[in-house]
Amino acid sequence: MSECLFCKIIKGEIPSQKIFEDEDIVAFYDINPQSPVHILVVPKVHKATLDDLEDGDAHLVGKVTLAAIRLAKENQIAQNGYRLVWNCREQAGQTVFHIHLHLLGGRTFEWPPG
Amino acid sequence: MSECLFCKIIKGEIPSQKIFEDEDIVAFYDINPQSPVHILVVPKVHKATLDDLEDGDAHLVGKVTLAAIRLAKENQIAQNGYRLVWNCREQAGQTVFHIHLHLLGGRTFEWPPG
Repeated sequence: MSECLFCKIIKGEIPSQKIFEDEDIVAFYDINPQSPVHILVVPKVHKATLDDLEDGDAHLVGKVTLAAIRLAKENQIAQNGYRLVWNCREQAGQTVFHIHLHLLGGRTFEWPPG
Repeated sequence: MSECLFCKIIKGEIPSQKIFEDEDIVAFYDINPQSPVHILVVPKVHKATLDDLEDGDAHLVGKVTLAAIRLAKENQIAQNGYRLVWNCREQAGQTVFHIHLHLLGGRTFEWPPG
């Protein structure tokens, strides 16, 4: 766990542009943005993939999602629209194995979603 | 609300291939699939967009997400990877204004996600 990039960001061992933080969640800008606004919302607890979540994590997962929705409003991308994306494992493009929700907005998105 | 396509599916007024249902959620196959497995997970309560969710909905939103993760495992797409997508409003490609989580798997996904 101590080698996890996002755990290091959460602990402050690696700098990041944090835009939200509470006891359970941190949010910061993606360093490789795919849209004018591209934010990662990350639970502080280390879970490598979505498959590591358990039924008792429902509230936390919902809280992460609602934080992303709130950040969309605060970043003025809610009115036109935004996309939220969870990637699980390599085929989906997961690159950091600490779960995180992508908030993307500020442009039109294509379908399919990748 | 009575004109909502997904409310009609939930009530059984329009047929669908339901693959999961409990008191809060229904899941069925997308009629225009974008991947070998493409399932929609839908809360039964009518919310037009993600922006209509309130803090008290955290548990429900988490339950929808965990249901999608469980369905990924049951449909044998978890091991290689899958993507979960929420679209909010037109720029993101939301077409049915009753919130739903897309579960897509069974192929490799590109980045950006649309």
